[in-house]
Amino acid sequence: MVKRSGRRPGNQDTRSSILDAARRTFAEKGYDKASIRAIAGDAGVDPALVHHYFGTKEKLFLAAMNAPINPGELIPQALSGPREQAGDRLIRLVLSVWDSPAGTAALAMFRSALSNEWTARLLREFVITQILRRAVAELVLDPDEAPLRSTLVATQIAGLMVARYVLKLEPLASAGIDTLAAAIGPNVQRFLDDPMPEVFKSPGA
Amino acid sequence: MVKRSGRRPGNQDTRSSILDAARRTFAEKGYDKASIRAIAGDAGVDPALVHHYFGTKEKLFLAAMNAPINPGELIPQALSGPREQAGDRLIRLVLSVWDSPAGTAALAMFRSALSNEWTARLLREFVITQILRRAVAELVLDPDEAPLRSTLVATQIAGLMVARYVLKLEPLASAGIDTLAAAIGPNVQRFLDDPMPEVFKSPGA
Repeated sequence: MVKRSGRRPGNQDTRSSILDAARRTFAEKGYDKASIRAIAGDAGVDPALVHHYFGTKEKLFLAAMNAPINPGELIPQALSGPREQAGDRLIRLVLSVWDSPAGTAALAMFRSALSNEWTARLLREFVITQILRRAVAELVLDPDEAPLRSTLVATQIAGLMVARYVLKLEPLASAGIDTLAAAIGPNVQRFLDDPMPEVFKSPGA
Repeated sequence: MVKRSGRRPGNQDTRSSILDAARRTFAEKGYDKASIRAIAGDAGVDPALVHHYFGTKEKLFLAAMNAPINPGELIPQALSGPREQAGDRLIRLVLSVWDSPAGTAALAMFRSALSNEWTARLLREFVITQILRRAVAELVLDPDEAPLRSTLVATQIAGLMVARYVLKLEPLASAGIDTLAAAIGPNVQRFLDDPMPEVFKSPGA
């Protein structure tokens, strides 16, 4: 089977229309409820054409987000290994991606996503479906606690990105990966593992 | 002495010119090096007029940032009290401000600040001079470690804002203040207090 690249020229107008329709549909319906069929309908093209250009729904979503990396490949790799070092490995993964050339594109994606309600909804779908869901699947977490634990981890990761790459607060912005993994890794680990106070189990408290 | 309010109508064009000049100057020179004189010069008005409309440099900065709260009033209040509960109190302060009506304005300020390099520089100046510097002054921290410790705390706070108020990740977004203070407070405390690994002391590592 010949592998088709989504990057070849093709009809740029059609590709753009599909990507615009995908952004609208993913933001409005959420990732799970957005279908290739609905996106094709919104773009006024045949669903087969969407598959032809972009492959799976997931690949279309990554293209619509201009995602420079595929968390589906990176997360299992980063999270496999001793469970008690998951926090450390997660920080190293984040820093190695964001310090790499892909980080510039990731920063642009993150910035534009934060800028308004509509694009923030797209980023939320991305974080939930492409990152948190995968991370929860890799880690062994009490199913009742997994949603809050994983979003707590997200606070630490998102804040590291904002402080280091957007605000560029020093000395954090220039600190090396070893320093930050040693400083922040244990906090991520605590979000994953620490017995949580009772109040933790009733999030409405 | 009659207290003059910066909010009275006055000459709106002049006020706007001064605020624009202030944003440019604070972003370009940084808070410490930006003088009322330089801002007045940029706006083409007499420095006395800037003082007349806005009072101190700090008040002008808060007005230029559309800051809905004054960290100079809130931080000492939140951080006074037992040192071993500083993390808990900091999380409660952040949540009580952002969950309040002022939070809507704070969110708008945060969003617009993250959107590009130029406005992010203004927010960095705000975070450093209005928040971190004050927090470090209230807490007793080893001066060598204070800069990294305080920016580590900033990662956790900024990430809590992004995940709860911008991305609205559930169940974090609906969790109560007690839940989040119990879950996140100890991590903030750890950034303040935990003996840090050796590598921590050489941020270039």
